[in-house]
Amino acid sequence: MTRVVVVGAGFGGLNAVKTLRRAPVQIEVVDRRNFHLFQPLLYQVATAALNPSDIAYPIRSVFRGQDNVAAVIMDEVVDIDLGEREVKLADGGSLSYDYLVVASGATHSYFGRDDWAEHAPGLKTLEDAVRMRRHILAAFEEAERHPDRAEELLTFVVIGAGPTGVELAGALIEIAVHSMSREFRRIDPSRARVLLVEGTDRVLPPYPEQLSASARKQLEGMGVEVLTGEMVSEVDARGVTLASGQRIEAATVLWAAGVQASSLGAKLGVSLDRAGRVEVEPDLSIPGHPEVFVVGDLARVPGVPGVAPAAIQMGRHVARNIIADIEGRARQPFRYRNKGSLATIGRARAVADFGWLRFGGFFAWVAWLAVHIWYLIGFRNRFLVFLNWAWNYVTFRRGARIITQLPR
Amino acid sequence: MTRVVVVGAGFGGLNAVKTLRRAPVQIEVVDRRNFHLFQPLLYQVATAALNPSDIAYPIRSVFRGQDNVAAVIMDEVVDIDLGEREVKLADGGSLSYDYLVVASGATHSYFGRDDWAEHAPGLKTLEDAVRMRRHILAAFEEAERHPDRAEELLTFVVIGAGPTGVELAGALIEIAVHSMSREFRRIDPSRARVLLVEGTDRVLPPYPEQLSASARKQLEGMGVEVLTGEMVSEVDARGVTLASGQRIEAATVLWAAGVQASSLGAKLGVSLDRAGRVEVEPDLSIPGHPEVFVVGDLARVPGVPGVAPAAIQMGRHVARNIIADIEGRARQPFRYRNKGSLATIGRARAVADFGWLRFGGFFAWVAWLAVHIWYLIGFRNRFLVFLNWAWNYVTFRRGARIITQLPR
Repeated sequence: MTRVVVVGAGFGGLNAVKTLRRAPVQIEVVDRRNFHLFQPLLYQVATAALNPSDIAYPIRSVFRGQDNVAAVIMDEVVDIDLGEREVKLADGGSLSYDYLVVASGATHSYFGRDDWAEHAPGLKTLEDAVRMRRHILAAFEEAERHPDRAEELLTFVVIGAGPTGVELAGALIEIAVHSMSREFRRIDPSRARVLLVEGTDRVLPPYPEQLSASARKQLEGMGVEVLTGEMVSEVDARGVTLASGQRIEAATVLWAAGVQASSLGAKLGVSLDRAGRVEVEPDLSIPGHPEVFVVGDLARVPGVPGVAPAAIQMGRHVARNIIADIEGRARQPFRYRNKGSLATIGRARAVADFGWLRFGGFFAWVAWLAVHIWYLIGFRNRFLVFLNWAWNYVTFRRGARIITQLPR
Repeated sequence: MTRVVVVGAGFGGLNAVKTLRRAPVQIEVVDRRNFHLFQPLLYQVATAALNPSDIAYPIRSVFRGQDNVAAVIMDEVVDIDLGEREVKLADGGSLSYDYLVVASGATHSYFGRDDWAEHAPGLKTLEDAVRMRRHILAAFEEAERHPDRAEELLTFVVIGAGPTGVELAGALIEIAVHSMSREFRRIDPSRARVLLVEGTDRVLPPYPEQLSASARKQLEGMGVEVLTGEMVSEVDARGVTLASGQRIEAATVLWAAGVQASSLGAKLGVSLDRAGRVEVEPDLSIPGHPEVFVVGDLARVPGVPGVAPAAIQMGRHVARNIIADIEGRARQPFRYRNKGSLATIGRARAVADFGWLRFGGFFAWVAWLAVHIWYLIGFRNRFLVFLNWAWNYVTFRRGARIITQLPR
């Protein structure tokens, strides 16, 4: 039986395994976590709108009924032996493969300034989101204890105006203006400042200019201060300094800038780009090893963005190529089908880019909502997330507003 | 204006504040956390059936519309100056009071063996519950990686057969037999052993004997091994040793035994019982200080158990006595009204004791469910918790089955 090992159960790995469900193979899935994470909604956990488990689904449950999944192993891959065709696990064991799919994704990058991580938490894992939530909620609590320092405590800086930064900035202003209103006695949460700092000259840089302009207008309409063309030169415990010399005193600085591919890429002995991504062949295998595929954020394919739909398509594609090999058919090169992009800004605010149709505002938000609920894995999560959203929309409340672990 | 300071927003403190809602007082509420915790359902978070925020509700939201709540302060009380009538906060500030309500509750106690805490986590805070959940779920994952050690890894020992211990043991066997079934390939989760160890001669010692017998029968019917009359002499990383000499090798040991009152009791300069509870006057004030009240698990009132309904009644009672003082009426002594006890054992299994009516089984479970949903604060939580339960009941799944933070 052909042995397939899949490393990582994000969008890429998960879809590779699913597409192989009727193939005559024996699959082993390895992930550091026991759950698949719906990363596009991570910012909603960070801003107390959703619970961690609303966007996380046990990997075992996904493959409960798939008989050719021989094992789901919660462990970390520490090395890959391409010669012996073996994956080495942190726990000491190893897995042999005939085909290997590496889908270990990416994390955030501080562009060499890892010392900033302490002051400006990023958002890639569920723990990141819970940490960010704690940080944000605790800032309001501390301001209530020290109203004299409220200005600094209620200033929030988001660095990077890609989709995540825009989402975070929008959600922060909504928390301050709506969710927290009438609940504080010594401070006025609606006086909070939210600043969105972006190095390029517009928000949502990968989007068409007209949508960047629309997003900016929508953000400013909510009260977000948008600073474009500003690089950050320093981040410390009290705020940020911009390259232009401007100093912003802020107790909360959130990082939504660079991305760094998983360090597993370096174990493959092939060339990587500056972000650590693997330069793959047209069929998504690595040079010299047609039995090893790289998919998702770890793969560098010209013209393909690091988004969930791309990872899903890549995962499915390598599965089809494995089946083609087994059935003696020729492999196909990967072609990305761009089905459109959606970025949400806040309650009833978003931008949509379907190429032939571009629009912003309420209907873009409805489209965003529909797509994200649809793609959430598992009926239960989909239904509860929808209820949570409906409830939040009607009441302006945020249900997951708890601070776990003491802030000091 | 009369200044009332309430320390702790559990069932006691929360109900004291609510009962004062129309009184001519100015209230300040201090709690280490920003949320009220519905402790009776903590074991459901520990066993992955509910999300942390399903049973936690922001204190600020509770008092959003109560105008005489002058402040909700998230901080820790480090000292109480009875002479100056001041409460000292960890953050450096202090609060003056005319009336003080101390409702800081209790935590678990290892009877002087605090070194056991590391190997046998207890269950009092939301962090405890998340830690316990991680421990339980990680044991199944590790067994899948090391099937040769599955016997030890899938042995769960619960120490203490009070309501919490019984609930945990019942939930653990349900996870193993139902929730995890068909999801593992190398181990059979349903072969897991759950042992419930109790020092006295029966489970649920505070209940009538017939209900203890019913509970034991229901537990054993589910597959739990019940060991009564067995004291624990040692707990270590590999399992527990009983005083009888029996050794149980188990990767997971959970602590549901002793209770220790909050250390704030010791700051009141009055006599405490062995569990650290304050010996209060009949009106729940402390000897020599009629302006200081102690309610909930921190108060020792003969004949009153440490349960949520008792704390609720005490909180309301001291509020009424404060109002009586203000209006020049005489204070009333506290009288506990026992409305009955309910303990759940598992899916469709429980015992109910209403004094005049005692029964076990499905209808006791329905009564338990109704009462707990009713008392959950906030419509939203009540509704979502109900949905979660309904879903779990139909599917045997557990929605919050995620392991956050890596187990090593």
